[in-house]
Amino acid sequence: MGISEFDLIRDYFAALTPGRDDVPLGVGDDCALLAVPAGQQLAVSMDTLVEGRHFSPGDDPEALGHKCLAVNLSDLAAMGAEPAWVTLALTLPEANPDWLAAFARGFGTLARAHGLQLVGGDTTRGPLSITVQVHGFVPPGRALRRDGAAVGDLIYVTGTLGDAGLALRAAQGQPVAPDALAFLRDRLHRPTPRVAAGLALRGLASAAIDLSDGLASDLGHICERSGLGASLQIDRLPLSPGVAAYLAETADWALPLSAGDDYELCITVPAERRAELEALAATWSCGLHWIGVMEQRPGLRVVLPDGRETDEIPTGYDHFAHD
Amino acid sequence: MGISEFDLIRDYFAALTPGRDDVPLGVGDDCALLAVPAGQQLAVSMDTLVEGRHFSPGDDPEALGHKCLAVNLSDLAAMGAEPAWVTLALTLPEANPDWLAAFARGFGTLARAHGLQLVGGDTTRGPLSITVQVHGFVPPGRALRRDGAAVGDLIYVTGTLGDAGLALRAAQGQPVAPDALAFLRDRLHRPTPRVAAGLALRGLASAAIDLSDGLASDLGHICERSGLGASLQIDRLPLSPGVAAYLAETADWALPLSAGDDYELCITVPAERRAELEALAATWSCGLHWIGVMEQRPGLRVVLPDGRETDEIPTGYDHFAHD
Repeated sequence: MGISEFDLIRDYFAALTPGRDDVPLGVGDDCALLAVPAGQQLAVSMDTLVEGRHFSPGDDPEALGHKCLAVNLSDLAAMGAEPAWVTLALTLPEANPDWLAAFARGFGTLARAHGLQLVGGDTTRGPLSITVQVHGFVPPGRALRRDGAAVGDLIYVTGTLGDAGLALRAAQGQPVAPDALAFLRDRLHRPTPRVAAGLALRGLASAAIDLSDGLASDLGHICERSGLGASLQIDRLPLSPGVAAYLAETADWALPLSAGDDYELCITVPAERRAELEALAATWSCGLHWIGVMEQRPGLRVVLPDGRETDEIPTGYDHFAHD
Repeated sequence: MGISEFDLIRDYFAALTPGRDDVPLGVGDDCALLAVPAGQQLAVSMDTLVEGRHFSPGDDPEALGHKCLAVNLSDLAAMGAEPAWVTLALTLPEANPDWLAAFARGFGTLARAHGLQLVGGDTTRGPLSITVQVHGFVPPGRALRRDGAAVGDLIYVTGTLGDAGLALRAAQGQPVAPDALAFLRDRLHRPTPRVAAGLALRGLASAAIDLSDGLASDLGHICERSGLGASLQIDRLPLSPGVAAYLAETADWALPLSAGDDYELCITVPAERRAELEALAATWSCGLHWIGVMEQRPGLRVVLPDGRETDEIPTGYDHFAHD
């Protein structure tokens, strides 16, 4: 297979998404030419998924096409940016038409749902790896940054926590309620970027981040960048039935606190805007739950269901026994 | 090694390039925030280099850091765009400090030379692979596109052709004059993107492309996008002494016509602007040479030194023998 076949793949992908008015020149030249609307800044984020690290050989290519874009859209969501353009660098061991068609279907469906145009990229032969860069718009001063949280700000998360992590553990042998498994797997392989929530939170959230590495770690970035600490109410963490059942059995709070791949938003909001925020989020299908508060003291603390506070993440009944 | 060590790598790279006024927020949040200057469009290009395909295991990491950025800057050059920002997705089998320091030195030196700020990216563990996206500015209507060539336009190239290709062949055993080898290897591993030439050609070149796949193939893209053909004067192709010596021995014109990795610019210019162009280019250290003309008839033709025209690329004395 020569370079030309890989060029054809690129052209094939370029036709996946409709043209936007702000793209004077899309795929097919040395560069794409893009027109950022007046009064907007450009928000960009780039993420790579590598086979064997972020996904497994044999994983559903349609889900993979969805996920590689979703994790990037999640970064735009966390910035309160409006999706516009995407570039795709796809490295493939071979040009398998069935695999490519399924991958493109997953990628294209999500791109079109968010009005994204694929404007460029590269297709090369090598070990399977996918790098995506998304580009969105946000008015100056309106982006949701990590460094804006203040003492007393309330901490919220969208959706539920630990679902993707439990799906991963189930794949490794952890018994999970069979009726929960399909939902958990879907959360792992087809995360939903909270783009509309991010846009709605402009001017309301004081800080935001998307949960890719786990709540404790990602909230830690807000703390660090804002020069603060945080306290979480462990019994307020929003849980799906499958994760709730797992926790009832194991008390392994490391799952919702530290497992990655949630792709929910974690935000902070000034306490006096609580009512406004909760009224806004009342219609969100993903939900929005209060889980804690920003504090002056650095570090992350967890308030256990019995009211005790700890700065260690409780990882199961063993932990409690030795506490 | 955990994710945090790879995060450190990212932060380390972020400090490589000085901050620009048009970057309200660089590395360290969910997205970078970028401000495209008023009256400018954004030109973007993304390219991937994969170990074993675009470079070899054990290749000098400093040269690799240079090259992965140079090939992308070459796309901005071919568009007549002014470099501004870069993102880097680096996938590494391990975090080898010596390798990383050398790679960063090569990448950072070239980035700073072009005033680029590294504004984001991703660092992951996996088979060695590098994806770079460059972002530049060009005023609306001033970009050098592939589709603007007209019948009678003169074809020019910067620099010399086939040097990188000959270096590759030398690595595979082709005897090459020893005093030419260092130059040829430098051309392969440390290509010089013709950014200043591209900027100077705004409003003068009718079409442009950078030579990555070889002159015949890349000029073919200008022909295709402009709906035309081209005729090349084979004895006008600019050659370095090493390639000239190789051709004197082999008459293998496939080297300067079809070998990749030159990263020179191929442009077309209206014939009436020839004097203006040549006066402009007289000071360019890379040089600019006339090599042919755009024609109505599709396809690529080559005029041999004896005046005969052929539509096949002469690949050596064997070819002439059977002609």
